[in-house]
Amino acid sequence: MLRRTTRDIRRANRIDVLRRVYAFGQASRQDIARHCELSFATIANVVNDLLGCGALVEADFQDSGGGRPRAVLTPNTARGLLVGVDIAETYVHVDLFDLALKAKHTSEHPIGPETNQPQEVADHVAQALDTLLAECGASRTDVLGVGVSVPGQVDPDKGVSVFAPGWDWHDVPFLSVLRRRIDLPVYLDNPLMASTVAELWLGAGREVDNLVCITVGTGVGAGIAINGSLYRGTNNAAGEWGHSVVVFDGRSCRCGSRGCVEAYVGAPGVMRTLMEVDRSSPLYHDGDQTACIEALGAVHGDPAATETIKRTAGHLGAGVANLINILNPEAVVVGSWAGLALGPRLLPELREVVAAHALARSNSAVQLRLCDIPGNPVSLGAAIFALEGFLDEALTRPASRTKR
Amino acid sequence: MLRRTTRDIRRANRIDVLRRVYAFGQASRQDIARHCELSFATIANVVNDLLGCGALVEADFQDSGGGRPRAVLTPNTARGLLVGVDIAETYVHVDLFDLALKAKHTSEHPIGPETNQPQEVADHVAQALDTLLAECGASRTDVLGVGVSVPGQVDPDKGVSVFAPGWDWHDVPFLSVLRRRIDLPVYLDNPLMASTVAELWLGAGREVDNLVCITVGTGVGAGIAINGSLYRGTNNAAGEWGHSVVVFDGRSCRCGSRGCVEAYVGAPGVMRTLMEVDRSSPLYHDGDQTACIEALGAVHGDPAATETIKRTAGHLGAGVANLINILNPEAVVVGSWAGLALGPRLLPELREVVAAHALARSNSAVQLRLCDIPGNPVSLGAAIFALEGFLDEALTRPASRTKR
Repeated sequence: MLRRTTRDIRRANRIDVLRRVYAFGQASRQDIARHCELSFATIANVVNDLLGCGALVEADFQDSGGGRPRAVLTPNTARGLLVGVDIAETYVHVDLFDLALKAKHTSEHPIGPETNQPQEVADHVAQALDTLLAECGASRTDVLGVGVSVPGQVDPDKGVSVFAPGWDWHDVPFLSVLRRRIDLPVYLDNPLMASTVAELWLGAGREVDNLVCITVGTGVGAGIAINGSLYRGTNNAAGEWGHSVVVFDGRSCRCGSRGCVEAYVGAPGVMRTLMEVDRSSPLYHDGDQTACIEALGAVHGDPAATETIKRTAGHLGAGVANLINILNPEAVVVGSWAGLALGPRLLPELREVVAAHALARSNSAVQLRLCDIPGNPVSLGAAIFALEGFLDEALTRPASRTKR
Repeated sequence: MLRRTTRDIRRANRIDVLRRVYAFGQASRQDIARHCELSFATIANVVNDLLGCGALVEADFQDSGGGRPRAVLTPNTARGLLVGVDIAETYVHVDLFDLALKAKHTSEHPIGPETNQPQEVADHVAQALDTLLAECGASRTDVLGVGVSVPGQVDPDKGVSVFAPGWDWHDVPFLSVLRRRIDLPVYLDNPLMASTVAELWLGAGREVDNLVCITVGTGVGAGIAINGSLYRGTNNAAGEWGHSVVVFDGRSCRCGSRGCVEAYVGAPGVMRTLMEVDRSSPLYHDGDQTACIEALGAVHGDPAATETIKRTAGHLGAGVANLINILNPEAVVVGSWAGLALGPRLLPELREVVAAHALARSNSAVQLRLCDIPGNPVSLGAAIFALEGFLDEALTRPASRTKR
């Protein structure tokens, strides 16, 4: 079913306008008009809404070369706080953001495999939130919304963790568990969708509207943004590129299939390649994922590392070229911890492999680069979901609930 | 740059409404409202436009159970003709459609490798068009538009065949060549985009808005429709899934890469598999592509054919599962001549392979089926592009050219 109601169009226009303000840090209505195809009247209406609910303020005035001075719009940092939560299998990371999406305070707690019950995880989030609020002299009433990312498959509309393989969660109604514990507007999604929306607002999306955000960590994914919007697919499962086959009948993958991208370029896959190259390499660090991947990314002149990087670039490059051939995007951005640790060493070889596999027309249209968002893009993206949710609530007047 | 101007929204709304009318053959404004999320007022406006330019007529009235009788809208078959042209490497196929998109007259001329200059191909199209018009007692003035599909990469906005590998065409301004010869509104695109738009209007798209249209012929592709719109990518090169890698370091592909889907499941790839299975199989038909593929699709109990189908389903299934995992669509439709010839034998095995590779959540959301559009979906899709072009011209008033 198509969704192109007044409400959807208003939301899309609002996000267009906000993306420009955040991309530049501040912008006049005229600056916004130069960078999106909305009419000046539409932009003025959206801006009025955003000023009305306090999301933006007119911070200053620009000289307009003889005409009336132009108001400069910025996010209203006095309006309230946003919380972004990145729950992974080994930690709970919580960021407190102002409305300019600057992280004011950060906390990260390790969690062990014994602490993986929904109630316990929710307790961690609540405690971290209260500690952070106390640190900056704020209270829960200052919080406009809390975005939470949990690993695996998520149904954001129902607030359900459909499947989190690391914890063996199946259909856990985690949103209501969280809401009972923290009693604030909470929005649930997964790290792939969160980091893609962060890339769209504050990464490559400052320049392009069609991008693929590749996350290379223990797991591997590819979030897709089309025409400036996150593409979720039929049931929020789009972007499972980590489980696309590049080596027919290849290595077993934890998803049950064989030859998946993740089995070669996820951190455990890269470590397996290192062992295939040199079973006694000290870079393996006795199986410590973080230490091994960081060593591979940092060492120079080690033949086993060089060969491992080369093979990894081969498989990653084939998978990236597949995305470029299928989606013909404007940008492919490589991120997440293993991608960033290996990135500077991988990138030159990766570009060569991609050029060998991708069709010339698509390859000429795409920029391939590393994610340069500072801090944690997952908690940032989760906070952006919270901001979108806050604005949806604040700006959805009864009149605009009707169909267009 | 985003495109969400008034004009784009009007065009999208118009296509939504028309897709419902064509899907049902006829529909009241109320029927349309039940099947798309546009408001009744928007639908009424769009219908007024379409009645005004003569694309639709009120053909009949429905009983509305006591209220005012409801007008039944149908395409206006008296308004004019549309031409759809499918130019392939071995033939020129031309269909004359009425505005209900029913093929009235068809012609197909074989063309040899010696007849591949743009001017000669354009001559074939013009001659076929005149013959068809004479057959039905019509003239060129009755034609509202001509949609033309040429193989390879196309820039539809510029009307340029960017690259047609079979003919070694590079940057041929084929639209102007055609226009000089036939002096009618002409729209240029490629078979992948054309068959995908046909699937969207008159195939699986009658029920879903997110679909992938897989074409398996000599070449292989996967056209993508998202939210009821054809997804073209950055420079109309999206959907080159035939050149995505499924067998790392596998068979050489004509694109220059290795291990592409096309090298295994395109007709020459399937024939190569047959030769690997049984070098002396009579089903090979001395390398006659059409005869061999049709024999493989029709024969039962031949061990070499069974093994060839099995291996083809394996590679095709891995590639289809990749699309399902990456795009999470509602439907994947397999079409084009080799896909349809092998389809009934391939499909049961294909479904098993897909289920083994695709993630459960995405696999549960997708229907996998064969294309059931009668006739030639490529010329049909080309005619739909001509219809869209005609309506863009007829309904673009100066006032609506402004930004929203």
